[in-house]
Amino acid sequence: MNQVATRERPVVAGAGLHDHFRAVRTFTERLCEPLAVEDHVVQTMPETSPTRWHLAHVSWFFEALILKAHVPGYRSPFARYDYLFNSYYNTLGDQWPRPRRGVLTRPTVEEVYAYRRHVDAAMAELLDTLEPEGRDREVADLVVLGLNHEQQHQELILTDIKHVLAQNPLFPAYRDDLAVVAAGAGEGPETPAGWRGFAEGLYHVGFDGAGFAYDNETPRHRQFVEAFEMAERPVSNGEYMAFIADGGYRRAELWLSDAWMVVSREGWEHPLYWHREGTEWYEFTLGGLRRVDPRAPVAHLSYYEADAYARWCGARLPTEAQWEVAAAAAPVTGNLVDMDRLHPMAAAGPGDGLRQLYGDVWEWTASPYVPYPGYVQAGGPLGEYNGKFMCDQLVLRGGSCATAASHLRPTYRNFFPAAARWQFSGLRLARDAGGSRAVAG
Amino acid sequence: MNQVATRERPVVAGAGLHDHFRAVRTFTERLCEPLAVEDHVVQTMPETSPTRWHLAHVSWFFEALILKAHVPGYRSPFARYDYLFNSYYNTLGDQWPRPRRGVLTRPTVEEVYAYRRHVDAAMAELLDTLEPEGRDREVADLVVLGLNHEQQHQELILTDIKHVLAQNPLFPAYRDDLAVVAAGAGEGPETPAGWRGFAEGLYHVGFDGAGFAYDNETPRHRQFVEAFEMAERPVSNGEYMAFIADGGYRRAELWLSDAWMVVSREGWEHPLYWHREGTEWYEFTLGGLRRVDPRAPVAHLSYYEADAYARWCGARLPTEAQWEVAAAAAPVTGNLVDMDRLHPMAAAGPGDGLRQLYGDVWEWTASPYVPYPGYVQAGGPLGEYNGKFMCDQLVLRGGSCATAASHLRPTYRNFFPAAARWQFSGLRLARDAGGSRAVAG
Amino acid sequence: MNQVATRERPVVAGAGLHDHFRAVRTFTERLCEPLAVEDHVVQTMPETSPTRWHLAHVSWFFEALILKAHVPGYRSPFARYDYLFNSYYNTLGDQWPRPRRGVLTRPTVEEVYAYRRHVDAAMAELLDTLEPEGRDREVADLVVLGLNHEQQHQELILTDIKHVLAQNPLFPAYRDDLAVVAAGAGEGPETPAGWRGFAEGLYHVGFDGAGFAYDNETPRHRQFVEAFEMAERPVSNGEYMAFIADGGYRRAELWLSDAWMVVSREGWEHPLYWHREGTEWYEFTLGGLRRVDPRAPVAHLSYYEADAYARWCGARLPTEAQWEVAAAAAPVTGNLVDMDRLHPMAAAGPGDGLRQLYGDVWEWTASPYVPYPGYVQAGGPLGEYNGKFMCDQLVLRGGSCATAASHLRPTYRNFFPAAARWQFSGLRLARDAGGSRAVAG
Amino acid sequence: MNQVATRERPVVAGAGLHDHFRAVRTFTERLCEPLAVEDHVVQTMPETSPTRWHLAHVSWFFEALILKAHVPGYRSPFARYDYLFNSYYNTLGDQWPRPRRGVLTRPTVEEVYAYRRHVDAAMAELLDTLEPEGRDREVADLVVLGLNHEQQHQELILTDIKHVLAQNPLFPAYRDDLAVVAAGAGEGPETPAGWRGFAEGLYHVGFDGAGFAYDNETPRHRQFVEAFEMAERPVSNGEYMAFIADGGYRRAELWLSDAWMVVSREGWEHPLYWHREGTEWYEFTLGGLRRVDPRAPVAHLSYYEADAYARWCGARLPTEAQWEVAAAAAPVTGNLVDMDRLHPMAAAGPGDGLRQLYGDVWEWTASPYVPYPGYVQAGGPLGEYNGKFMCDQLVLRGGSCATAASHLRPTYRNFFPAAARWQFSGLRLARDAGGSRAVAG
Repeated sequence: MNQVATRERPVVAGAGLHDHFRAVRTFTERLCEPLAVEDHVVQTMPETSPTRWHLAHVSWFFEALILKAHVPGYRSPFARYDYLFNSYYNTLGDQWPRPRRGVLTRPTVEEVYAYRRHVDAAMAELLDTLEPEGRDREVADLVVLGLNHEQQHQELILTDIKHVLAQNPLFPAYRDDLAVVAAGAGEGPETPAGWRGFAEGLYHVGFDGAGFAYDNETPRHRQFVEAFEMAERPVSNGEYMAFIADGGYRRAELWLSDAWMVVSREGWEHPLYWHREGTEWYEFTLGGLRRVDPRAPVAHLSYYEADAYARWCGARLPTEAQWEVAAAAAPVTGNLVDMDRLHPMAAAGPGDGLRQLYGDVWEWTASPYVPYPGYVQAGGPLGEYNGKFMCDQLVLRGGSCATAASHLRPTYRNFFPAAARWQFSGLRLARDAGGSRAVAG
Repeated sequence: MNQVATRERPVVAGAGLHDHFRAVRTFTERLCEPLAVEDHVVQTMPETSPTRWHLAHVSWFFEALILKAHVPGYRSPFARYDYLFNSYYNTLGDQWPRPRRGVLTRPTVEEVYAYRRHVDAAMAELLDTLEPEGRDREVADLVVLGLNHEQQHQELILTDIKHVLAQNPLFPAYRDDLAVVAAGAGEGPETPAGWRGFAEGLYHVGFDGAGFAYDNETPRHRQFVEAFEMAERPVSNGEYMAFIADGGYRRAELWLSDAWMVVSREGWEHPLYWHREGTEWYEFTLGGLRRVDPRAPVAHLSYYEADAYARWCGARLPTEAQWEVAAAAAPVTGNLVDMDRLHPMAAAGPGDGLRQLYGDVWEWTASPYVPYPGYVQAGGPLGEYNGKFMCDQLVLRGGSCATAASHLRPTYRNFFPAAARWQFSGLRLARDAGGSRAVAG
Repeated sequence: MNQVATRERPVVAGAGLHDHFRAVRTFTERLCEPLAVEDHVVQTMPETSPTRWHLAHVSWFFEALILKAHVPGYRSPFARYDYLFNSYYNTLGDQWPRPRRGVLTRPTVEEVYAYRRHVDAAMAELLDTLEPEGRDREVADLVVLGLNHEQQHQELILTDIKHVLAQNPLFPAYRDDLAVVAAGAGEGPETPAGWRGFAEGLYHVGFDGAGFAYDNETPRHRQFVEAFEMAERPVSNGEYMAFIADGGYRRAELWLSDAWMVVSREGWEHPLYWHREGTEWYEFTLGGLRRVDPRAPVAHLSYYEADAYARWCGARLPTEAQWEVAAAAAPVTGNLVDMDRLHPMAAAGPGDGLRQLYGDVWEWTASPYVPYPGYVQAGGPLGEYNGKFMCDQLVLRGGSCATAASHLRPTYRNFFPAAARWQFSGLRLARDAGGSRAVAG
Repeated sequence: MNQVATRERPVVAGAGLHDHFRAVRTFTERLCEPLAVEDHVVQTMPETSPTRWHLAHVSWFFEALILKAHVPGYRSPFARYDYLFNSYYNTLGDQWPRPRRGVLTRPTVEEVYAYRRHVDAAMAELLDTLEPEGRDREVADLVVLGLNHEQQHQELILTDIKHVLAQNPLFPAYRDDLAVVAAGAGEGPETPAGWRGFAEGLYHVGFDGAGFAYDNETPRHRQFVEAFEMAERPVSNGEYMAFIADGGYRRAELWLSDAWMVVSREGWEHPLYWHREGTEWYEFTLGGLRRVDPRAPVAHLSYYEADAYARWCGARLPTEAQWEVAAAAAPVTGNLVDMDRLHPMAAAGPGDGLRQLYGDVWEWTASPYVPYPGYVQAGGPLGEYNGKFMCDQLVLRGGSCATAASHLRPTYRNFFPAAARWQFSGLRLARDAGGSRAVAG
């Protein structure tokens, strides 16, 4: 099995921007094709959004930040959409309350697609004459931002609809044609993950300036990193089953204080989407209910669970600086959305070096999401994109089976609150160099 | 304007039952025709249900109580629907939690219609050979019950979708073709409502046994009723505006204790669906946003508001026995769903006697919903239909612009909790005979 | 054992009013003597109040309604107490929020007693010159009302502190010296309760005008009552244990819909204050943890539980009219607070006629608390005393082991919401005359 | 005015440990002397505890970790206290739920003091024979930990009782004899705070091993710190008033996303405990309601407010490493609890260098509370002391007017959630070196 996904060209300004615009916009709609109209409407928790809303919001983003701001004479025939589809940009006006996105049934899916057509047409007109460098540079940069923004929502479309469908006791699949690559019968038991060591040093961390990156990856700066070791692959379902079997969810001493409150209150006993039937574990996937593959990376863990698992086996989570140091030279390839599996898969074999850094699951790090030293938050709506969320969230690194290859780079910082589980989120173990404590797996 | 709606034959067992079955089932679907698929999915509060759910639940009712129970060899190809579409019949098994009806996107609308087709076909086969009297009497009675049940959900389909659409700041209309009969410009101001007196006496109350009635209308029994007077028509929007203008919503002394808590907590300042723009009142209707007609009956009041209004003008609400005594001889006609206005209308003129007893708005009474003396709750699911709700609800009498004429009779008892406002609920004033306190209007 | 408590003279205006004032006021303080200062402070749920608050509120009642309103030149040195100790009289100004009574630590208990001293002195001055009839009649009536009001709070002091102490895993007793009269070892099993029949008829119900009564007992009016039978004693703990043993708390078909929601949500499995240890039932009492006496009346039931129990054994609750008809001739005696047992006791023997109508436990009736026909709610604070609570509550009749004999009469209407359990509330069964269904016990 | 508080000897094991034990234990009780018994009982939010609980819990700490674990044959006569007064040590057994500490009225204050006496006596016996070094070293270290633990609760006793008294509309003072040092009338307006610069470098951070420190201050490790500047004093009330006057609480762009939700939901418009009367600001203090001193450090801010203020004036909060670098050489002196002011005070004058690093207010840093590199969480109860809280909290540095001098050192890490406001928490501004943006003040 070849895990190497063809990496698309990163979304940057320049020649081919219009092509890239079309490709990203089309891919969004392709993701929605398998859905029934009904699936587009529901919001199952405040953190998720109806598919219809995503479809409209990403179009609004182009309209609000580019068409209205930079195309003279542009007037939207969808005036009220400003209110309905602004997510959280206070500098762009009031917003329909986030937890109530699911009470709206209009505009309909069809009307939202008409809105997309309208925005696409206006953008096409603009893009045809855009000079990526020079006087149009600012606008071109906004287009690139808008496309990266849309790629983030592509991932949310998948994770949010998975949450919607998972609520249904009928367990309807998002798609019935997803390829499943089960662990081969003759492959024998999983090999414990090896460790890779990294020397202490004053490292540079953060984006180096070539191409597109979010502001939260800047500025590049120095950090002293102690010597450490990192596991060669993410923790697998089989390893996580051992944690469960050992009473992991019932042993308070393994959990952070906040975590233990959530575990007790919510009655967590396994990753989100897992179901036990007799002695077997099943999980709801975008392809429907499947038996859990013990060799695939465990997914849909909260930070709390990732942290408890690491403590249970005498290791810890890496910091984001360590992850970035370790991943610096690795290519951005793996089981990403481009592979169209939409579920984490077992690694192909023992391999060489750190595997599955990108794709399969986002990896929780031990690092709270804070600004880098010297970070400057822009004014206006761009400043609201990332900066105002830098509190009480944790950084995840890598990328998942629902992330576009062209969206990622080694310095990419994803972030979610500690209790979030509906993303494809797992973990990779780390430990201090020379650590002698035994590590499971 | 002729307010007399042609009254359909009451839904009773006998010749033509099959015809009536078809008519009721078809009318349900006709009510859904104006809706977008998206409109069928949403649940805006635990008390309401998605249209899709209503469509499926009423079919499940026939399947669970008749087909499965009385047709040998019947097996449902929709086994899981038992769980999804059972509303509250514990004797028929577990139920999908009511407040989570809106998280389900499947079965789709189309699949629900397929379910209806299936149930209709199986019912048609049964009905073709059914002897309404004799050995099939029990089944025929269940069919009649099922049709009355479906008529109740027809009304809920309208009131629930109104609640859904009203949340939307775009104010989408359920239908654009609803006739509006505005008060004529030349008609002059509204005449104050007159009073009709009724003598004290030991009256018989409750259903007398001819045709269909719900168990909660039985047994017919004696009640001593003091002499009283009743207003000739419901309270109008114009009269209610005077209550608002007089600070009615800000004067604690007019409200029950529970009511004042709700008013304060929810910030109520007017009936549900009203909006003030400048000095004008508008209201959301099934036909979209309209100016409030001061001469039409006020609707979408809670019991709390009806009670406070009555206290404000020195009157009170009638008891349900008084209402039944007063309405005993009146024909069941009025602005009912059969008139297809779907909104309360002003009465045609001064008229003669009690007007608008049926249609326009359900009228809150002062009577808590309790069993009549000698009431016996049946065993099994039929016993759960009405009896278990006889606590902390109030009786409403009459019928609204969303009720079918063939569904009503003078002894009909509707009931809702005191804070409910999403029904077409208004009030008619009563007072003790010889009461000298002035009454507004 | 003699259950006959010496009935104090009813609290009415007239000669001896000053004596009665002193007696009632003193009794309140006597009830608080066993408490630690700490016990006076806590509020364990919004429905209960700290002892300190009760002590102050009943004094404020005299101050606000009598001293400030009827004593020229009276000025309170405790100006802020108006805000802190007004319970719910909107016509007398704003109130400190009820659910936050337990966050206040000042005024201290000592300061509250100083307040009582002050009010007592001012009242003594007034009472010494009061003419109960004639020009001072209105004030004398208010004094009587204030004393009845204080007696209600005496009962609440006991039930509220029981709730406070019951939360504590140390199970501290309110008093260690309460007499326990256990069922004699040689007395044999309990005799099933007999039934007493009453003929149908048009009865007069409500207060007849001699002496004091609350406005909610008026006006006396006619009600048609069907023939019925009533159990000779309340349901006992032993009988209720059989309901539990029969799965009563797990059988949805026995419960009202609202009730089942509460039972499921709260996990109710037995009366409030019961604890199971192995196969034995214990209950927390004002005398500490005791073994449940199977022959004593069951207490601390909600309406929901009383109703479910009655349904389980094929009976029902009486209406309040039936209770009043049945109790019309019975003396107001029994295990009332005057007997100083502070816990329900087994009846002395088979006896003759209806037993334990007063004392032991308040008896839930099937009657919602509504105004009697012709009831007129007074203006001003007096109108707020009872009238504004006439919604979503049920009437209880009789009186409990925490009620003063001088506070009661056959027409007395107590009322609580259906879910309330912290009062000494139990039930007596009723059934339609000629009912042939078996009744447990 | 002399702000230099005599610094007590740090609490470390060694000669005089018994003396120190007595001193700390006595000081706890001295803090409770001004309270009424009633004040000891109330819990005003889940985060705070009743005074009685603090008094008992700190004694339980010595009993559970030392007497029971290290004194052969020790048996507690207060067996149930293990359950009631264990705060959060799962390895030591179950705990009475934290949010319900305020429903307990027993043990009484007097009984809690008896418990203290008992523990003190047992500890005295132990301490008299303890060898601080050598074989008893472990126990001696636990005694030192227990005393530091008690000092933390001393601070909480003050901040929690302030929260209790502040709820009361009577504004009762904790003490009436607290010295107030108002800004002199002739002193003129406040001088803007100067800045102090620090060079970039690889600094050592964390405790260096001499004497006592908490585990969360270890291990000492290297961090690269960029050049930065820090304000010479904390932000003052006057400066914060300018933020309010500039609409700071109404401008979404100044706030973190989570912060804006809290500000909106809670209606925050000023620091906790401030009250506006006309154009004047007052604040509730432990000495009662006082006019806000514009020159004193602003206190009772959440992290959200500190962050918003810093953004408003173009600066930021320091990281905890920067704070530690800046404070490395400063003496631990200031307006600490030892000065007995119990309220932040204005600095004495322009001074020299960084002022008020210790005392007055804890200073929010920009640093999430995470383990230092190489941190090892101990097993057993000691591991629960700090480690399990390392998520979703922010570090505060310095110490407040309610902190003991002997409890502090430059590496001390205090931590609270971002929304917490009931501590004496304020801020000191920082900025990148060479930052040219203007800073208010």
